[in-house]
Amino acid sequence: MNANDTHWTTAITQIEPNEVRLRGYRIEDLMGRISFAGAIYLALTGSPPPESAIPLLDAILVSSIDHGATPPSTLAARTAASTGAPLNAAIAAGILSINRYHGGAIEDAMRLILELVQAASDPAALEQEAAALAGAYRQSRRRIPGLGHRIHSADPRAARLFALAEEAGIAAGGGRAMRAIAAAFAQQAGRALPVNVDGAIAAVLVDLGLAPELANAFFIMARVPGLVAHIHEEATRERPVRPIHPTDHAYDGPPPRDWPPGEQP
Amino acid sequence: MNANDTHWTTAITQIEPNEVRLRGYRIEDLMGRISFAGAIYLALTGSPPPESAIPLLDAILVSSIDHGATPPSTLAARTAASTGAPLNAAIAAGILSINRYHGGAIEDAMRLILELVQAASDPAALEQEAAALAGAYRQSRRRIPGLGHRIHSADPRAARLFALAEEAGIAAGGGRAMRAIAAAFAQQAGRALPVNVDGAIAAVLVDLGLAPELANAFFIMARVPGLVAHIHEEATRERPVRPIHPTDHAYDGPPPRDWPPGEQP
Amino acid sequence: MNANDTHWTTAITQIEPNEVRLRGYRIEDLMGRISFAGAIYLALTGSPPPESAIPLLDAILVSSIDHGATPPSTLAARTAASTGAPLNAAIAAGILSINRYHGGAIEDAMRLILELVQAASDPAALEQEAAALAGAYRQSRRRIPGLGHRIHSADPRAARLFALAEEAGIAAGGGRAMRAIAAAFAQQAGRALPVNVDGAIAAVLVDLGLAPELANAFFIMARVPGLVAHIHEEATRERPVRPIHPTDHAYDGPPPRDWPPGEQP
Amino acid sequence: MNANDTHWTTAITQIEPNEVRLRGYRIEDLMGRISFAGAIYLALTGSPPPESAIPLLDAILVSSIDHGATPPSTLAARTAASTGAPLNAAIAAGILSINRYHGGAIEDAMRLILELVQAASDPAALEQEAAALAGAYRQSRRRIPGLGHRIHSADPRAARLFALAEEAGIAAGGGRAMRAIAAAFAQQAGRALPVNVDGAIAAVLVDLGLAPELANAFFIMARVPGLVAHIHEEATRERPVRPIHPTDHAYDGPPPRDWPPGEQP
Repeated sequence: MNANDTHWTTAITQIEPNEVRLRGYRIEDLMGRISFAGAIYLALTGSPPPESAIPLLDAILVSSIDHGATPPSTLAARTAASTGAPLNAAIAAGILSINRYHGGAIEDAMRLILELVQAASDPAALEQEAAALAGAYRQSRRRIPGLGHRIHSADPRAARLFALAEEAGIAAGGGRAMRAIAAAFAQQAGRALPVNVDGAIAAVLVDLGLAPELANAFFIMARVPGLVAHIHEEATRERPVRPIHPTDHAYDGPPPRDWPPGEQP
Repeated sequence: MNANDTHWTTAITQIEPNEVRLRGYRIEDLMGRISFAGAIYLALTGSPPPESAIPLLDAILVSSIDHGATPPSTLAARTAASTGAPLNAAIAAGILSINRYHGGAIEDAMRLILELVQAASDPAALEQEAAALAGAYRQSRRRIPGLGHRIHSADPRAARLFALAEEAGIAAGGGRAMRAIAAAFAQQAGRALPVNVDGAIAAVLVDLGLAPELANAFFIMARVPGLVAHIHEEATRERPVRPIHPTDHAYDGPPPRDWPPGEQP
Repeated sequence: MNANDTHWTTAITQIEPNEVRLRGYRIEDLMGRISFAGAIYLALTGSPPPESAIPLLDAILVSSIDHGATPPSTLAARTAASTGAPLNAAIAAGILSINRYHGGAIEDAMRLILELVQAASDPAALEQEAAALAGAYRQSRRRIPGLGHRIHSADPRAARLFALAEEAGIAAGGGRAMRAIAAAFAQQAGRALPVNVDGAIAAVLVDLGLAPELANAFFIMARVPGLVAHIHEEATRERPVRPIHPTDHAYDGPPPRDWPPGEQP
Repeated sequence: MNANDTHWTTAITQIEPNEVRLRGYRIEDLMGRISFAGAIYLALTGSPPPESAIPLLDAILVSSIDHGATPPSTLAARTAASTGAPLNAAIAAGILSINRYHGGAIEDAMRLILELVQAASDPAALEQEAAALAGAYRQSRRRIPGLGHRIHSADPRAARLFALAEEAGIAAGGGRAMRAIAAAFAQQAGRALPVNVDGAIAAVLVDLGLAPELANAFFIMARVPGLVAHIHEEATRERPVRPIHPTDHAYDGPPPRDWPPGEQP
């Protein structure tokens, strides 16, 4: 094979002696001037995020950083760790357990929202389209992605994310579409099924112009620190190869406290 | 097995209906009030980071977000992606290629620094201990972790990180120890081998009180977005199962530009 | 959650003190009396394989044990190994690179064959259906799974597998369907594209009654030993984190020799 | 980088048009003439196995093909599968849970045996060395690898494997060493802790000349089919993202039956 046959290009990072540029910007210029979440947007899309969107990106990642010891990704990571797996292998086992039925709802909700946003040119059309979509889901007995939660009847993370998006002036068609779906479902079903954290993230990611095929990346990037915390806890607290009960566990960490720390009396 | 035999506890996250608390704090209180990097510190250590340390944590993660198409983790992730792997599987393949010889230097440097910090109670003792350590490495022809770089003779990320640590008032024994090692090496070898980004991160993580067994976690968490960008680029730009040359590639992204974007003339 | 809510059952292996039964049979009764390949069939399907099928199962797995250093799964496994990954992590990186575009053709071919087998009740109908199918693939410019090979114009593994199936009396509708497709393609395209090893395996697996969703399992199980050999070679022959060229490599192992070894003059 | 800088060689498989040679032998000559287990030995060591060793290699792999739903590798694979992971990702999650504390005993036992074999030149010396080794383990309260089992007081797989090795004329210093350790332990502890399947496999692999760093490969290769069976069962029998209890499960497969099938009345 001729050398030229294998030549290829990449538009992400440029490496020169003593210079590392991410999407054109010097890494050392980004350091200290943009949050990691903001740099993630830059790395993934190739463009700097709108400045007002940066805290929102941080909030999205913070919202999904961990959800306790019950999710399959956590259990898989702890199971690997309990056999003596090195940190990276246990993280990988956890990530391999993030799929359609766990973490996949953000992408599904983004596609639903995009379908609505494209179909509905004005508020009246949006309401109509949302009613049609909700009806189709109900008829085929499928769950609408982004609505409802096994544990939380009012997901506190969703409300907070929508409020932050409003403050930042980012809230737009994505959020409206997600709420239109929730309203249509409530009307048809005669009971409310509020937007959950996945639905809220999906709405904000649509309003930030992200592609739905990157949705799962946000869930994975957000959850890796939680997996690390569980792997570290498993390795330092538990004996190897214990049977890990998926639900018979309790919280024994710091008691409820208020953020920010300084404001505590 | 009796049900009680499997009961266990975790100190990371408490889940109650409509309430998710990370290390005691409500997730929705953290959202919008702490960066993702700051929340990572909280998730991993159980304590909120010192406020001045938060931008530093962001800077550490930004510094390692990507290093182009040459690192083995990037090549493994692209190789998996090129066969049609879903995003999470390609990320996992990348993470599984972060080991002792790629990404491992941060942990090695942290252990070296901690050894020095514990042994040296005053500046004179530090100089002496650093000389002894550097000599031992040189005699056994081992590379000192955290010093030198294949491409960068003066790693711009290291200088920036040390400057930010200084500004934040975080710089302490860790940074001094790392620089003492570099000075001792230069004196003995007759040539400088400056502290690289791994060495600078290691110094700051020591000064922030992180455990060395979490060092690799910082590299992995930082690099996942870079892997995602490469996986997405491979999937959208290249044909499946192409031979991926490890070095014969060039950058074709945005031209050099200055950060922050608004300051461009 | 009530303990009863989590009770579940499995039909694969029964463990009692001093007794391990696979699908009802004592493991120690199987040991020495059935080949590993035969036991794989038992483990996967729940039934013992027809006795004449056992050498065929071995042959299928032998046929795909390795295909040199070029396949993506091999390169991913070597890449991970070259960073110092433990054996299991490097194998996992390799397996994660076995997807739709590498290894996936067996399942695609099985589904194609099953479609033909179900549609065609007699030889004339088979010929007609095969012509229609080949035409549809050609019209949509898709490659027919199981036909042709980048390197081998006459895949020696396919011919051998068909011959063994014939000998064993296993050859049936699956093989006929695969060959009907190849014949239809040759007639329409005016050039032959012989059945490759994937197509031959697919035909035999159909004739053995295996489900197509297990097709990929056969490729993965077959290839793991090859991955192990490459990982071991990488770890023992090469320096860490070398750039691994995907095609610029040559074979330097034992010279061509005849099997069985005893027959050499 | 010059093209020559990346040229490298491999001694495993030679690919030429219409010819695939594994360690020098045509794949199609191996197919139908050697079992998959025998070909594994050839792939890993570069030499054909002694003919009498082939059924033994099959027996080793059969012995470890599955151990029910309790092992961590099985639980991790099922956990990934239950989230909708594709087959290869679920297998990878399982393999990543095979580490020091699960599957690692074969390698540990091989190293112990090799230490003994090298130290003890005659039966009297062997007895003495085994006593010293067993004493050292007991004093440091470490478990001797290859001895005892959580469930099986007399592991039926170990006895069978030793008998097959005897029949094949393969039993040699490895087996003697493993049994000398067991005898020394029994004498010192005043209670027997018989050789388990890991210890028996280790002994036979030593007698077959395998390197201890390949021990884990045998466990992994053997277990992959079991993982596949569990993944397939999870995907076809259970609802997604169920809590998977690690011990509260029962066997509901075929009732106890005798092998070979034909001999049943």
